[in-house]
Amino acid sequence: MRDPILLPLDRTELTAELGGGTVRRTVHPSGLRVLTERMPGARSASIGFWVGVGSRDEQAERGDAPGSLGSTHFLEHLLFKGTPTRDAFQIATSFDRIGAEHNALTAKEYTCYYAKVRDADLDGAVTVLADMVTNSVLDGGEFENEREVILEELAMAADDLADVANERFFEAVLGEHPLGRPIGGLPETIREARRDDVDAHYRGRYDPATLVVTAAGAVDHDRLVAQIVAALDASPEERWHTDRASLPARRLPGAGAAGRVDGAAITDATGGAASAAEARLQLTERPSEQVHLLIGTEGLRSGDPRRFAFGIMNSVLGGGMSSRLFQEIREKRGLAYTAYSFGASYSDSGVFGMYAGSAPEKAAEVVELSRVELGRVADSGITEEEHERALGQIAGSSALALEDSDTRMGRLARAELGSGELYDLDASLERFAAVTAEEIREIAALLAGRPQTVVAVGDTARSGLGGARR
Amino acid sequence: MRDPILLPLDRTELTAELGGGTVRRTVHPSGLRVLTERMPGARSASIGFWVGVGSRDEQAERGDAPGSLGSTHFLEHLLFKGTPTRDAFQIATSFDRIGAEHNALTAKEYTCYYAKVRDADLDGAVTVLADMVTNSVLDGGEFENEREVILEELAMAADDLADVANERFFEAVLGEHPLGRPIGGLPETIREARRDDVDAHYRGRYDPATLVVTAAGAVDHDRLVAQIVAALDASPEERWHTDRASLPARRLPGAGAAGRVDGAAITDATGGAASAAEARLQLTERPSEQVHLLIGTEGLRSGDPRRFAFGIMNSVLGGGMSSRLFQEIREKRGLAYTAYSFGASYSDSGVFGMYAGSAPEKAAEVVELSRVELGRVADSGITEEEHERALGQIAGSSALALEDSDTRMGRLARAELGSGELYDLDASLERFAAVTAEEIREIAALLAGRPQTVVAVGDTARSGLGGARR
Repeated sequence: MRDPILLPLDRTELTAELGGGTVRRTVHPSGLRVLTERMPGARSASIGFWVGVGSRDEQAERGDAPGSLGSTHFLEHLLFKGTPTRDAFQIATSFDRIGAEHNALTAKEYTCYYAKVRDADLDGAVTVLADMVTNSVLDGGEFENEREVILEELAMAADDLADVANERFFEAVLGEHPLGRPIGGLPETIREARRDDVDAHYRGRYDPATLVVTAAGAVDHDRLVAQIVAALDASPEERWHTDRASLPARRLPGAGAAGRVDGAAITDATGGAASAAEARLQLTERPSEQVHLLIGTEGLRSGDPRRFAFGIMNSVLGGGMSSRLFQEIREKRGLAYTAYSFGASYSDSGVFGMYAGSAPEKAAEVVELSRVELGRVADSGITEEEHERALGQIAGSSALALEDSDTRMGRLARAELGSGELYDLDASLERFAAVTAEEIREIAALLAGRPQTVVAVGDTARSGLGGARR
Repeated sequence: MRDPILLPLDRTELTAELGGGTVRRTVHPSGLRVLTERMPGARSASIGFWVGVGSRDEQAERGDAPGSLGSTHFLEHLLFKGTPTRDAFQIATSFDRIGAEHNALTAKEYTCYYAKVRDADLDGAVTVLADMVTNSVLDGGEFENEREVILEELAMAADDLADVANERFFEAVLGEHPLGRPIGGLPETIREARRDDVDAHYRGRYDPATLVVTAAGAVDHDRLVAQIVAALDASPEERWHTDRASLPARRLPGAGAAGRVDGAAITDATGGAASAAEARLQLTERPSEQVHLLIGTEGLRSGDPRRFAFGIMNSVLGGGMSSRLFQEIREKRGLAYTAYSFGASYSDSGVFGMYAGSAPEKAAEVVELSRVELGRVADSGITEEEHERALGQIAGSSALALEDSDTRMGRLARAELGSGELYDLDASLERFAAVTAEEIREIAALLAGRPQTVVAVGDTARSGLGGARR
């Protein structure tokens, strides 16, 4: 079986050929990490600036202290609002005038600023992204304006019942764990957010040791490393200068909470492993035509060796039109337009869920069918034909996804920020192929054996869910 | 200036080199058209079966006759439900087991069934798509099940207020024109839909002369043509056999209504050109955190020579983070998370709109700002710097989009089904570059001079919109 490419924090240079391309990685003495994957024939490139800090690292409310929920996402917005040499409009025009696909995203364990551009536009995009990430001024006026924009973003999410169901589900399954909190914060924490707190978050968390830059496509590794080091050294903020040695930060896999393997510890704001999921039914009443349903429990953490078995199980249970959930809920009974299952994994915990949206009067049947189907896999496993089909689905969809430089750019970053192991397609397919039928049944049994949470959002009063508990 | 590739219906074979790839087109004596674009180095392909029939071709309710609104979309669903040799589950597994990206879409003027697959999987995907499109049995039991699925799909859309606003906007701007009707029909028309009507729609509209097959990526043109002709000839349905000569159908550009340039006419169900848009305010009250706003008017039809000027105007007005709407509404005032403008073009009419979602109490200001910004471009045009930036944005984003075989596959089909002119990137960029500042101002003035429709969906009672009219 082929080994993954290992990404030890103390190895400064690495080159590996994989799947037609070339991966290179530099760990700079300053702690900065740069990973690239050159794709032959590519005429464009995807570039991402990743910071290993996410919403889970925020401070929850404690006593009178308002906490900082949403500050990571707030900071992500503010990084587009200007540096000493570029105002917000100049940042916007620098991407627009080259027709870049660009955006940023805040996740529970990292934040990412990215762009996809034509090859000739890469240097320019790197320059602007590096300036945004290192030199943001967090202007007070822009802060107040962006507070309003984020409140609109939260209002938009609050009107999207599938979004609401998703946030409620994470909260319900993960309980008090920081991973259970909404990424964007709450309207109250955003209304109370103070510029100085977000600024402290920025200065305390963004530095060379937390920064990972990844690129894929038409990219020259040495040129990119030199460009980023030069940009960091040119920063008016001393913390970015690369002449100070620092050990890069990596969230400790499986150990819970954020941390640095070497350098100074990133303190996890609330600490603790994932709370044991308790069986619960959570109904959120909203006027609607459909009820959004999520049924599930605590899942696997990122590096769990059972993730390959889970991937096959998930494909068979709810991974496509031929999956059991889609067949039973939609194709045989017309109970929903969409039905699928999913897993989300983090360094020390994860979530497994089954989703469907259905008319309220059909909701109870959908919940029951979902439980039954998970139980069937737990009891009897999957057929050989399903097993083969899942392997084919994973191989085909992965190959198609990896044609896009975005996917490869993200794969580099998640490997570096996460387990420190980079699986190319062949190495990962070999592991999927080695999974046994019994391992697949076992992972379903593990999940089915945990207390199940049911979240329903919409016109639940008509749903028959809850009974006396409503 | 480079000419587009012309696609005359009476030219049987065509080969053209463009942008690194090779376009080939065959018009078969049966009326079948196959267009391919071979992309060097591609390891995958996108394949689409397009039928030049959309929701606009449906029969509206007349007197006691219930009409057929939604029947095109209903048929699209049913084509996944089985043929004499493949049941619905076999169709689903044939895509899933190769990890294909596949789906279908019903639009106002066409319907498309497509897949993106690895190169080695192309033949298999073509086989299944050809079988689905030509040999669907439209089983009565599957029909009843799918009625429920579509009602769930409509319920999901009804809960999505941005979706609701979009449908209301098209209805309000285009009035009684068939293009103004919702693509999926209405819950009442779906509840009343009869299998025999959908079957008649299928038999009357789907044949070699309305079928256009397009593919891009790792595709061999001659092989694909032979495979499709063989599949059509093998159909138990005689109407598909390719030994009968027929002239291909093309919707008459600019003439209104569906029609065949040559062969038998496709009768447009309700006929007539787009109704003159009347200024109107349409409020739809729903409990919500945000109000979804659309402001606009009748736009340009597909082949309008002013579309290049419109593209630049639209980019500057609402095409990115540096656009005027985004800057004025979001960046300067924090009134919305999203603000943009758009155009949608059809053979004989089109729509121009400006969208934003905002807190109800900010809605009136957003509407006013949108009108003011359109008016400013209409009065004073755009700056040279904006002009340059828009050209760069169009060039960059088009180049990135065309890296994907999906985009090229769709471009072939839209050219064939629409104007019969295929513009490659260079030919189209030359036309954008040739647009004058005055032409840009004029297209804004044309749109600003038309009666404006305002659609608001959400908690409009708090919005201050409407005043005495509510």
